[in-house]
Amino acid sequence: MLKTYPYSTLSETDIQRLITRNADESLQVTDVVLDIISNVRTGGDSSLKELAQKFDKVSLDTLYLDKSEIEDLAMRIPREQQRALEIAFQNIHRFHSIQVKRERVVETMPGVKCWREIRPIEKVGLYIPGGSAVLPSTLLMLGIPARIAGCKEIVVCSPPQKDGKINGYVAYCLHLLKIERIYLVGGAQAVAAMAFGTETIPKVDKIFGPGNQFVTKAKSLVQSMTNVSIDMPAGPSEVLVIADETANPTFVAADLLAQAEHGADSQAILVATTESLIERVNQELVQQLAQLPRQDIAQKAIENSYAILANNLEDAMKFSNSYAPEHLLLEVAEWEPLTRRILNAGSVFLGHLTPESAGDYASGTNHTLPTSGYARAYSGVSVDSFVKKITFQHINEEGIKQIGATVEILAELEGLQAHKNAVTVRK
Amino acid sequence: MLKTYPYSTLSETDIQRLITRNADESLQVTDVVLDIISNVRTGGDSSLKELAQKFDKVSLDTLYLDKSEIEDLAMRIPREQQRALEIAFQNIHRFHSIQVKRERVVETMPGVKCWREIRPIEKVGLYIPGGSAVLPSTLLMLGIPARIAGCKEIVVCSPPQKDGKINGYVAYCLHLLKIERIYLVGGAQAVAAMAFGTETIPKVDKIFGPGNQFVTKAKSLVQSMTNVSIDMPAGPSEVLVIADETANPTFVAADLLAQAEHGADSQAILVATTESLIERVNQELVQQLAQLPRQDIAQKAIENSYAILANNLEDAMKFSNSYAPEHLLLEVAEWEPLTRRILNAGSVFLGHLTPESAGDYASGTNHTLPTSGYARAYSGVSVDSFVKKITFQHINEEGIKQIGATVEILAELEGLQAHKNAVTVRK
Repeated sequence: MLKTYPYSTLSETDIQRLITRNADESLQVTDVVLDIISNVRTGGDSSLKELAQKFDKVSLDTLYLDKSEIEDLAMRIPREQQRALEIAFQNIHRFHSIQVKRERVVETMPGVKCWREIRPIEKVGLYIPGGSAVLPSTLLMLGIPARIAGCKEIVVCSPPQKDGKINGYVAYCLHLLKIERIYLVGGAQAVAAMAFGTETIPKVDKIFGPGNQFVTKAKSLVQSMTNVSIDMPAGPSEVLVIADETANPTFVAADLLAQAEHGADSQAILVATTESLIERVNQELVQQLAQLPRQDIAQKAIENSYAILANNLEDAMKFSNSYAPEHLLLEVAEWEPLTRRILNAGSVFLGHLTPESAGDYASGTNHTLPTSGYARAYSGVSVDSFVKKITFQHINEEGIKQIGATVEILAELEGLQAHKNAVTVRK
Repeated sequence: MLKTYPYSTLSETDIQRLITRNADESLQVTDVVLDIISNVRTGGDSSLKELAQKFDKVSLDTLYLDKSEIEDLAMRIPREQQRALEIAFQNIHRFHSIQVKRERVVETMPGVKCWREIRPIEKVGLYIPGGSAVLPSTLLMLGIPARIAGCKEIVVCSPPQKDGKINGYVAYCLHLLKIERIYLVGGAQAVAAMAFGTETIPKVDKIFGPGNQFVTKAKSLVQSMTNVSIDMPAGPSEVLVIADETANPTFVAADLLAQAEHGADSQAILVATTESLIERVNQELVQQLAQLPRQDIAQKAIENSYAILANNLEDAMKFSNSYAPEHLLLEVAEWEPLTRRILNAGSVFLGHLTPESAGDYASGTNHTLPTSGYARAYSGVSVDSFVKKITFQHINEEGIKQIGATVEILAELEGLQAHKNAVTVRK
């Protein structure tokens, strides 16, 4: 089922074509989103209520749920699910809590001290998709690093369900995160509300979270319209599996399908060192696909995907680095030496027993990752994404003597006399 | 000369108006830049040569200078300037070299190991403005962290001088950085060339550097047209000085003017706790302005700026945090307790003897910083800007037993059966 390309027959142009993700962007989406943004900017809360009526088919009196309603919904979900969310919370918290460290002061010259200090981004907005999908895991993946960073205001928006409330799993995650309010706003209008603020919804400094093409378009538009920033550009999800002759075709097929069920535009790429493995994975794909509830979606995604037959693991890694996958699985016997060759990837899963699903939900790593080749320059979300690092410096009398002449010479050669003066007056 | 607003009389709306930077963006700039980008994409090197003829008034045979030409130019500058650039290089290198650290492996559950590894962004593009200004310091500020990060390819573009070469100071910085080629391309065409690649100039993964409105517009446009990323959005430079009664008005005025000489759209804000200081700074501004070669520019910038009279340092810091300045100077007696209250700033200069110029050139901190309020969510350039942090995980037999059920429950409640299967087949 996966079309196979032997790596050694591919020209540079073929590779460029294969690694290019399908980005069929509709201009219509831009128009719709611009219209929604302008509505929200002028109409505020009342236009958010109208849009809830229009898109979510629900009539809202207030645009949010508060603590007691959240707790009420949270406590109704079964204990087994509560427990699973708690374990995920603990692991994600454990992994993220070591990510930001104090740095030491560097005395670059006697009397010239420089250092960096970390400050949380004050106001952050988290968008949690709703509708057909229910994504409590996304709330954990964004809320936990925001909490660890110490963000003062965490604004969460998610579309209301038909009953004007939110899903109990999402409510339980709010409970774990000690977030006491959730705004019942979805889609591009949620992004617009957080970017510009309304009577009820605070304007934030940075917006995080996945979403459909309307949400991601809104994020990229508001970024250029106001000085809000966003986590990263978004595209369809993707996985690249590198597999050698020791790989288990059942596992590999299951991993490819876990990606494929996300959407018809998802990509699931297999790079294998033996042709027989590709054949056996293809057989497994047929069997496993037949069992899936989201079979149609996964089938389409597999048709948009392909396999590469590489001569060796070196070539396999070369292709992977060109592709720069969001998720990279190394289903090979000797993964350790291979990891050093990884240049571009969002998150890497090592060995035969490490499925991507573990990282998607509960192992501790973040699942908000760069897609569409952005892994060449972007990292996934982490506590880093919720803080700024501010540089500080202090110069004393000895320091200004030490560094003064250097600054004067450099300011002068750049033709900036006032820069020079600021030192001269202090000497 | 600085208009003064007493803080206690300002409404929230007044503050919003004061902290909004003037962003008079011309649509004409967009059209010109789009045209240049499309020329470079289709015409490649030959269109770059035409644009050099048109904008830089120089006819180029080759689009770059190589090692021997660079060394030749570098060795002709006076030893005193070489020495000043070397000291700046050393200090910047010393401060940046501690910025990226290995992180430990976290075993989030028995048999589930997660960690992050750092990888350089492979190909980075540095834009160094030329023309009227000569900015070797910018090359150091971008080239040093790129070298520390270990970027494989560092593409440097700078407009050619009238003689078809580059300035000797820039050449000396290339020498210090061991960069053996510089591309003689300036303006929006340089950004387009690095974003899309030409026959001679490699396509890069991330573009850094300041520039005029054409350059910054080109950066924001190519970011949305291809999957290149950029360092940060750019605006006019700015400083905010918090001064108490111990401040020296001569120093304060010199610091404000060092900012003001950058451009007529620069902002130099004084937040003082006594009226008499504002008066004395105004007197100093008149005197110092009269001596400046870039007097006209600085005068206009000062007219676009203002002073805030605050009742105390707490209010002063409150205003500063709302403004989120690129540069913050604390010219106060007791700066230490005040630093803890800083929430939003790019780079901070502490006490009476720490001029911004020190950090602009040589103390060690980076001078590529967030402007226009972006300091609320962005950090300045550092080694972090030149690397990705990739997450890794490895799960063994014990680990999959420990975490398996949790992942299965969470995948099921999100309705993603194939995600669940990827665990089930491994149990």
